[in-house]
Amino acid sequence: MKLCRYGELGQERPGMVDAGGQLRDLSSLWADIDGSKLAQDEIAKLRDIDTAALPVVPGSPRMGAPISGISKFICIGLNYSDHAKESGLAEPTEPIIFLKAVSAICGPNDDTLKPRDSTKLDWEVELGIVIGTKAQYVSERDALDYVAGYCVINDVSERAFQMQSAQWDKGKGCDTFGPIGPWLVTADEVPDPQQLDMWLDVNGKRMQRGNTRTMIFDVRTIVSYCSRYMTLMPGDIIATGTPPGVGMGIKPEPVWLQAGDVVTLGIDGLGQQRQNIVSWKG
Amino acid sequence: MKLCRYGELGQERPGMVDAGGQLRDLSSLWADIDGSKLAQDEIAKLRDIDTAALPVVPGSPRMGAPISGISKFICIGLNYSDHAKESGLAEPTEPIIFLKAVSAICGPNDDTLKPRDSTKLDWEVELGIVIGTKAQYVSERDALDYVAGYCVINDVSERAFQMQSAQWDKGKGCDTFGPIGPWLVTADEVPDPQQLDMWLDVNGKRMQRGNTRTMIFDVRTIVSYCSRYMTLMPGDIIATGTPPGVGMGIKPEPVWLQAGDVVTLGIDGLGQQRQNIVSWKG
Repeated sequence: MKLCRYGELGQERPGMVDAGGQLRDLSSLWADIDGSKLAQDEIAKLRDIDTAALPVVPGSPRMGAPISGISKFICIGLNYSDHAKESGLAEPTEPIIFLKAVSAICGPNDDTLKPRDSTKLDWEVELGIVIGTKAQYVSERDALDYVAGYCVINDVSERAFQMQSAQWDKGKGCDTFGPIGPWLVTADEVPDPQQLDMWLDVNGKRMQRGNTRTMIFDVRTIVSYCSRYMTLMPGDIIATGTPPGVGMGIKPEPVWLQAGDVVTLGIDGLGQQRQNIVSWKG
Repeated sequence: MKLCRYGELGQERPGMVDAGGQLRDLSSLWADIDGSKLAQDEIAKLRDIDTAALPVVPGSPRMGAPISGISKFICIGLNYSDHAKESGLAEPTEPIIFLKAVSAICGPNDDTLKPRDSTKLDWEVELGIVIGTKAQYVSERDALDYVAGYCVINDVSERAFQMQSAQWDKGKGCDTFGPIGPWLVTADEVPDPQQLDMWLDVNGKRMQRGNTRTMIFDVRTIVSYCSRYMTLMPGDIIATGTPPGVGMGIKPEPVWLQAGDVVTLGIDGLGQQRQNIVSWKG
């Protein structure tokens, strides 16, 4: 199933996309889509509903992040072998964990606000894991039982902010730096999360292309690993790293996003995003 | 005023400590203490109430973190000049921002769980800033208008986890690594946040002593700075760094916390905490 939240910011309603690609309203069943709805047996109940009986949503509403009340937005750094190679960096021996501020979360097609002092705005298409069940010290064998589904994430990054100290969080957590969606695609519809093509274009030019098969640490390993360091709560998100082709890595000169640029990105079966870059105006 | 939340985990009720040190129940006025209650004019309304009419809370209940629904737990690294000096590290030229997972938050006297693979568990007494009003790009001059109050924080740290990669978050965000409280002391009762003595003992032995006057970046600077990189939301917490005396810095050999140890800490006017170190048992 493709679960989503649509409507104006702060007033999103729960929805789903049916087999024909039609957006339908879910609010007769759920008040919202948050961690409390994401256990696999909870999601399974939705499979029995008569989708055709749900109201069709007219027009093309704004899409919000597909989960509300996200408590943690975890990221895994430098997790693609081809990206590590292109960067001339050694592959990490353990997953590198950092956190994105939850105030960065926005809808998949919302404008990306270029912060006031930004000079090096960059992009990163990533596979997002959505946690369905509270996870503490789970084994790699069992790890996928704790996953509700997957989504597209753009881990928007300001490299000058990120690299100003050794701690990356400052350049990763600015407002609108975390577009999520358009959908949460439930795990049963993603038979192998390690075989997904992904891409990102800037102004229609292909900048990133990759496949989740070149992850250094796969989904199973990441969920198990993170759960050894912090309890993963239902609705928590883990962004799993980016394949080659970020602006910072372009030769001979890096390329940075400017106001007016358009970023589009997607992952096989998980949908697409589109962001206009807009300067912050205070 | 000293605002607090008391009762069993997940069932905390709002309270306040009156001028005589008596804990009184606030639930006739507020359902809970969260960001929606923390604007300075909202807090000001409480000043007119007849404290003596509030029910006295009997016994010595567990104290929870004094704010619920905290969305961001921001930390400032290496922010005391005497601590930088003792560490042999250069003073940072800008505040170093990192994030603590909100799942680490606990009450001020809750047990500290030593994680399964922990070998280097450490302590850090810190002044916590509680944001009262949404803050974006606020000036240093205006920054204190956005502060609801202050609290004691132990920024519990696992140094092996923290130093395993360059990103500190993994060693800072384990469950129970964020005791907050016992109180949120409102800003009007902290006339100068840069003149507060602070201390931390392990098994009754004084390990840390400091004063907020040796902060490299003061409260005003920190709030303004953070607000340039992410919108600060009411109820967000900023831990402002630790003075000299952490276990990692002890010569000739560092000292790490072990199960059975007792950590006590406090800041002038903001109260005290006490944690028993307990091994995680899965």
